[in-house]
Amino acid sequence: MNARKPVSLNLNVRGMGQSATLAVNEKCRALRAAGRPVFNMGLGQSPFPVPVIVVEALRNAACEKDYLPAKGLPALRDAVAEFHRKHEGVDVHPDGVIVGPGSKELMFLVQLVFYGEILVSAPCWVSYLPQARIIGRTVNVLSTSHESGWRITAAQLRRSLEMVQDDYRPRLLVLNYPSNPTGLTYSTVELREIAEVARAFGLIVLSDEIYGQLHHLGKHESIAKYYPEGTIISSGLSKWCGAGGWRLGTFAFPPDLDWLLDAVAVVASETYTSVSAPIQHAAVRAFRGGVAIERYLWHARRILSGLGSHCAAVLERAGARVHQPEGAFYLFVDFSPLSEQLAARGITDGATLVERLLAEAGVACLPGVSFVQPRSELTARLAYIDFDGAAALAASENIPLHEPLPAEFTRERCPQVHAGVERISAWLAGETPAGSDWNTPAAAVHGR
Amino acid sequence: MNARKPVSLNLNVRGMGQSATLAVNEKCRALRAAGRPVFNMGLGQSPFPVPVIVVEALRNAACEKDYLPAKGLPALRDAVAEFHRKHEGVDVHPDGVIVGPGSKELMFLVQLVFYGEILVSAPCWVSYLPQARIIGRTVNVLSTSHESGWRITAAQLRRSLEMVQDDYRPRLLVLNYPSNPTGLTYSTVELREIAEVARAFGLIVLSDEIYGQLHHLGKHESIAKYYPEGTIISSGLSKWCGAGGWRLGTFAFPPDLDWLLDAVAVVASETYTSVSAPIQHAAVRAFRGGVAIERYLWHARRILSGLGSHCAAVLERAGARVHQPEGAFYLFVDFSPLSEQLAARGITDGATLVERLLAEAGVACLPGVSFVQPRSELTARLAYIDFDGAAALAASENIPLHEPLPAEFTRERCPQVHAGVERISAWLAGETPAGSDWNTPAAAVHGR
Repeated sequence: MNARKPVSLNLNVRGMGQSATLAVNEKCRALRAAGRPVFNMGLGQSPFPVPVIVVEALRNAACEKDYLPAKGLPALRDAVAEFHRKHEGVDVHPDGVIVGPGSKELMFLVQLVFYGEILVSAPCWVSYLPQARIIGRTVNVLSTSHESGWRITAAQLRRSLEMVQDDYRPRLLVLNYPSNPTGLTYSTVELREIAEVARAFGLIVLSDEIYGQLHHLGKHESIAKYYPEGTIISSGLSKWCGAGGWRLGTFAFPPDLDWLLDAVAVVASETYTSVSAPIQHAAVRAFRGGVAIERYLWHARRILSGLGSHCAAVLERAGARVHQPEGAFYLFVDFSPLSEQLAARGITDGATLVERLLAEAGVACLPGVSFVQPRSELTARLAYIDFDGAAALAASENIPLHEPLPAEFTRERCPQVHAGVERISAWLAGETPAGSDWNTPAAAVHGR
Repeated sequence: MNARKPVSLNLNVRGMGQSATLAVNEKCRALRAAGRPVFNMGLGQSPFPVPVIVVEALRNAACEKDYLPAKGLPALRDAVAEFHRKHEGVDVHPDGVIVGPGSKELMFLVQLVFYGEILVSAPCWVSYLPQARIIGRTVNVLSTSHESGWRITAAQLRRSLEMVQDDYRPRLLVLNYPSNPTGLTYSTVELREIAEVARAFGLIVLSDEIYGQLHHLGKHESIAKYYPEGTIISSGLSKWCGAGGWRLGTFAFPPDLDWLLDAVAVVASETYTSVSAPIQHAAVRAFRGGVAIERYLWHARRILSGLGSHCAAVLERAGARVHQPEGAFYLFVDFSPLSEQLAARGITDGATLVERLLAEAGVACLPGVSFVQPRSELTARLAYIDFDGAAALAASENIPLHEPLPAEFTRERCPQVHAGVERISAWLAGETPAGSDWNTPAAAVHGR
């Protein structure tokens, strides 16, 4: 850098690092390259392959080369609207749907074009706040606790809204359920109560339901059912369809928010233009659903439910606090009941806890602070995704769907995840990692 | 809209419409749906299909589902670096390459993270200025004329830079060549001279070379050759590879600008995350090139060159001013020599000219004002792309590459484009459109 070419960056982005999820992934890769076995509970990617019929649809659409409309391929917008009508019982119109290269990008555009206050419940997904920072906005964070199931309550929301003497203030509330990072979701009663407050204050609710189809009992419900006029439903292929790398997300706006959708579409047309045409054509197949996709989802849910419950049970027995998972593939674990023992080992915050877990037990996960929790909080997100999803689905196909999976199923099919939580458990008890594999290269076993 | 839910938008985006290119396209669609034949010279999409081996590569990559690094698939970044080394003779390092969902998105991110003055030569591509407006920046426009070949000169650039008493001001100059909308490019001497000024003032040059491979003689040259330390090369699949709808663009940064690249990559990771994995895997094949792609490009160039020259000749004979095209698939036509006749018909600005051309001759094109030219200027961009590119390529394959295309080739293979310019010519001469097809439905002929 010489005097004529100084670093000249927008202050909003100066000093920003890459996202925490990517960073932990690179740490894992480096450790594995050095021959250390690593149990990756850090990354939030679906373990399952894209359903075969959807991959086939992409093959068939490989020669699609035209620029598509900024809001998306009409057939896809139809399919998304129908998807929400069918699954959420919400009357979504195709004109209200926009397709983006990931729901993250659409969230960014909404933050960019909306002029108003943004409220987010924490712990929350890693990118909401960095996006606000890039744009130069501040975000109001609604804190939650283990006791409240990491959920906000309607009363809490009302209190927070009433604190500002500005009845007509434009506000947007981001709700994510089933939640990343908690794996928990809202009940019907809770959604109804929050909807009531939202209606009273004219809130816009951005309902991030990207994990909706991964509700472990297939019983996901949208707040849009109770507050249709003010709710934007966010979905996409990344989680339930196993296609994170394809980059396709969708937002469904109600007619009353057409002004917001139109502004998002204009900025879309001046930035990413439209989503990749072959991907959109393939996504029509995914959103239309059908028997093959339903079966895929039921098997995925059964595996995730069994595996998540097992992990939660192991960690509870080890003295941590964690809720029974309800959806997605995350546990948000509270280690505070063990704070004395941890303090005796020099661990008094979440970041140190997570670092030591990786260094001493070989388990990678993310601290609560990555999800906007207090630095001192002894919490961490564990993702139970480090297994061969294709093989697990194939094995599950041999067990009738109305039967529960036998106890040994996930132990056999998801050995890395089982080993990961057992290592955490042993480490909490002060034991050194079992066996010799921690100190010897184990690429053959752990090299995926 | 009720009192509790007012429109609340960022002032920067209020009142913005969709981009001019999209708007003209929708007008054409509506007219055709009403049974009117329309000669679409408005849209800037390659007429050619994606090369077969690249489509095959996408088919083979259809099951790729992992999130890729924010900067792009390593193999693709290698291929892009090698592509620029081979074609532009510039020593690009893979670490300097970033892949985005279109070069338009990357341009937006550069504008967002760079803190400094942005200079653009006009006429210029439709999205540079709206992007600046969304972000809340102002852009300095360097005007050009038909006489200067719609190019800036080094002396003009120097004068403009010296007007501000701020020697160390951070500045970024956007240069696009071969140019959209002019179809013209810079000579070696011009690039050398501009490079000298850029070096003297420590400018960052964003060199938009998306049409580089569509230089009609295959002789594209990059300013990066003469100013490697300060030039970012922009490329992508949209134009030379016929894959506009795939949405993949690339920026290649020099090592001195790593701070800018890093900031773009961070914002990428918080917005679009990474480009669609199957598309990136297929793009490796495209950027690696080889005999099949070289042949495809030479045939495409020969067709575009012959067709562009024919169109320019027809329009010149009709009294307009237009340069012999050098690349891409555009003519930027100056109708000012006919200003008296046009004024007598009530046409005194470019927008009216273009409206009347569509209404009275059935030819759609875009006025100079869409490319940041003065409202009163009687200029328009004509794209010569409304033909069956696959059939034209196949026919061209039958004529040895060292021979010129016979005069009748484009008349036979690109009848809509020929008819389009002939209609303009007749309309300028005050004739009504030839034949009855203007007044009768002609969906069978013109329905593509």
